[in-house]
This record gives sequence, C-alpha cells and structure tokens, in this order.
Amino acid sequence: MRNFKLVIEYDGTHYSGWQRQKGDRTIQGEIETALMTMTRRKITVIGSGRTDAGVHASGQTANFKCDTSLTSETFQKGLNSLLPKDIVIRSCQPAAIDFHARFDAKSKAYRYHILNHHPPVAIGRQYVWQIRRPLDTHAMVQASQYFVGTHDFKAFEGSGSPRAHTVRHITMSKLSVEHGGKITFDVEANGFLRFMVRNIVGTMVDVGLGKLSFQDIQEIFLSRDRGRASATAPAHGLFLISVTYS
Amino acid sequence: MRNFKLVIEYDGTHYSGWQRQKGDRTIQGEIETALMTMTRRKITVIGSGRTDAGVHASGQTANFKCDTSLTSETFQKGLNSLLPKDIVIRSCQPAAIDFHARFDAKSKAYRYHILNHHPPVAIGRQYVWQIRRPLDTHAMVQASQYFVGTHDFKAFEGSGSPRAHTVRHITMSKLSVEHGGKITFDVEANGFLRFMVRNIVGTMVDVGLGKLSFQDIQEIFLSRDRGRASATAPAHGLFLISVTYS
Repeated sequence: MRNFKLVIEYDGTHYSGWQRQKGDRTIQGEIETALMTMTRRKITVIGSGRTDAGVHASGQTANFKCDTSLTSETFQKGLNSLLPKDIVIRSCQPAAIDFHARFDAKSKAYRYHILNHHPPVAIGRQYVWQIRRPLDTHAMVQASQYFVGTHDFKAFEGSGSPRAHTVRHITMSKLSVEHGGKITFDVEANGFLRFMVRNIVGTMVDVGLGKLSFQDIQEIFLSRDRGRASATAPAHGLFLISVTYS
Repeated sequence: MRNFKLVIEYDGTHYSGWQRQKGDRTIQGEIETALMTMTRRKITVIGSGRTDAGVHASGQTANFKCDTSLTSETFQKGLNSLLPKDIVIRSCQPAAIDFHARFDAKSKAYRYHILNHHPPVAIGRQYVWQIRRPLDTHAMVQASQYFVGTHDFKAFEGSGSPRAHTVRHITMSKLSVEHGGKITFDVEANGFLRFMVRNIVGTMVDVGLGKLSFQDIQEIFLSRDRGRASATAPAHGLFLISVTYS
C-alpha cells in the first residue's frame, strides 16, 4: 500500500463544495471518479478539510492510499487529463504511509477578495465579492487586527455543524487595500470553524459600512452568539490558499 | 432624438458573440432587450464591431439613439441592474447626434493572454490560452514585430466574411513575457479583419513552437493565402480593450 499527497487547485463555481455527496458535483467526487478510472479501484480521497459550495482553492491538499505500481507523476498526468478543466492537480507526491491530510494539518491560509468599485466588473466577477457602497477601509484594517490571537470563535461559527471546541488561534489576519477598490483579506489559523472566514469578512464589511464599531467586535466575541455577528460573506470571494504540515 | 455612447465590459464565455442572432445569446441582444424593458421601444445598439463567440471585452463601445428624457446616468444604472452579471455598462454618456460607434472608430486595441505553464490553472482558465509545450518567447517577441506597419492581412483573415480591402495598419504589436509563463500580446490597428488577431497569435505561437521561422511570416504575408498561416488561436484568450475615436 502506498500513500500520495495531492495539492489541488479548483474553481468552485460549479461545485457543491469539496465533500462527496450523492447526486451533487463535488471536488472530492470528481477526483475519486478519475482515480477509479485510472486504477479500477474505489479510492477515498481525504481532503485537509471541506470547502463549502462555491468556494475556490489554489492550494487544497489531500491524500489517498492505493496498492499500485503507478508513479506519482503518472497519477498527476492521468488525473489532469481525466478531470474537468476547473480542477487541476498542481502536484502529486509520495507521502509517508501514515500521512493524513486532515489530521496532520498544522495550519491553513485563506484569502478573501472584495472589490469596492462602481460600476462592477464582468471579467473575473466569479472570484470576488463586489460591494458598491463605499467602505471605510481604514476602519476595516483596524478591525482585521481584532481577530489575531487565540479566541473563542463560537459567534463566528456557521450553524449546522457545531464543533465541541470553538477556540482557534489566528496567526495572521491582514487586510490589504490596493488601487481601484481591491481589498484582500489574508487569514491563517491552526483551524477554522464552518463559515468562520466568511463570517469574519461579513463582520469586517459591516465595520466598513459603519454598521458596527470596534467595540461591537469585542462584544460579539464575548456573546458567543452567531446572531450577533454579521451575515456570511458570499462563497465566491473565498480561496483556500495553502495547508501547512509540520 | 438623442444619442448615447456606451463603454461595455463583458465576459464572452457564455455568449455567441456580440451580434444579435435569433435564438442565440449575444451581447447586443441582451443590451437591446434591457433597453426595451427600460424604454418600451425597440432600440438598435450599434457596436464598434462584432466580437466573435467566446471573445471578451473590457472596453467595447457602442451607441444607440432614443427619443427619451432619461439621463445617461439613469441608462447606466438601469442597464446594469437589468443585464446579466457578465455584461457591465462601464459608462454611458451623451454623444453628438451623428456619432456612430462603428464608422467613427479610429483604432482598436486588443489583448491576448497565453499561459505557458504546466500544470495548467483552474482559476481564471476561461481568460487565457493555456499551452503546455515550451514556447521560445524570444522568437515570439521578434515575430510580433513583423506585424507592425501597413500590410495586406489577407492570409490572416478568417474565411466566411471576406472584406474587399484587406490592407490594415498596425500601430502596435507587442508581446510581453512575465514570470510564471504569462505571455501577453497587445495589438492596436486602424481596423481588424475577422479572426485577424487570433490568426496572428496562432502564427506567433507556431514560431514559439519552432514550426515556423521569421522568413515564413514574410512568405505568409506575400502568399495572401489563409491556408499558409497557422490555426486560429482560441477565442477565450482574446479581449477587446478599447476603441479610440478622434
């Protein structure tokens, strides 16, 4: 038995997210189907974690085990020729037999793209949250710093799949403002709750719109109440950039 | 009667090109439908020229005439709220009553994106021609300079809609090479024949692949034979960037 590590890029626009689901197009499902075509075996692909419907990735990671003589290069080539064009295997490498893409992940980095510009754009609209009303980006940059460190993110967890432990450690939370209304939010943590990045982004945008103040963010954290934080930012602005292993 | 000038951005992925065609989704058709919703009149939108199926634009121009009291701001807002998200009116301005988006155009600028990288990309794949085999970009930069000036582009004209005059004057033909295999071709001329940019790109790529030499380009020009030039580059790498008026 051999173990392979994958780094995967995908455009999530036309997928119901990472996780295999009967009757839905998913990234995991497409890769497992392609592996079955290559090996004639039913192989489970273990992702570093789920990404939700419509979320993109430039560096999702996964592993799969297979009793095979095929090389990792052959897997990469074969998968890329079998997969739809909106999923690309960026690399395939042999891994230690006990490597597990989810359990061994030390940290993950996400990026969220906002465009605060009017009129909107048509080219690339599927990769950015377009906000027409003027944003106070100075306030948003300040707000982004509130998230760094160890916090209980219960108030920023999406409903539906609650975790027993909601404390996470954010090592980077950086909002960058470029010309032309481009706003990029980079966040890195040892783990994320469901919808956590998108709920943080929604909250920062409400700060930018003047609906929330800095003090409100502190209170939202303390409340541990999802109803206090802002609406979830749309999926299509979010990218899973990289997953780090020790 | 008043005349309005539009600057239009569109993602051509899901369109059969600019020109209205019965039963097909086209950019012109969508804008005319939206104008009919706004004004309850049948209005013809005159583009600076057609773009083919799958070609994008960041700065297509058009004009339309209408007996209306609506302001250009109202047209822009109304159209952008009615149009699908892959078409955006970047600007709408009052124009002289005799302004004609096609007849008055002095020059057009196109850009073509190539990515010479392996593995391919999933994110943004709909905006770039991905070529896996290594390209000699130095030879392509040299080749790009052959197209500047006044030439008979008969050999680079697509079949199907021949023009009586096939001489065009190219004022800029510039191939830029960036890190990561990004290749951008910028070309500006007083006018273009059908498929002309894509046929030039196809020919330059054949130079990059070593299939054609510089001398061959000269011979292709002199031959005036479409069969001598290379295959047409795919539509989805091409952008109409701007149209200039005097």
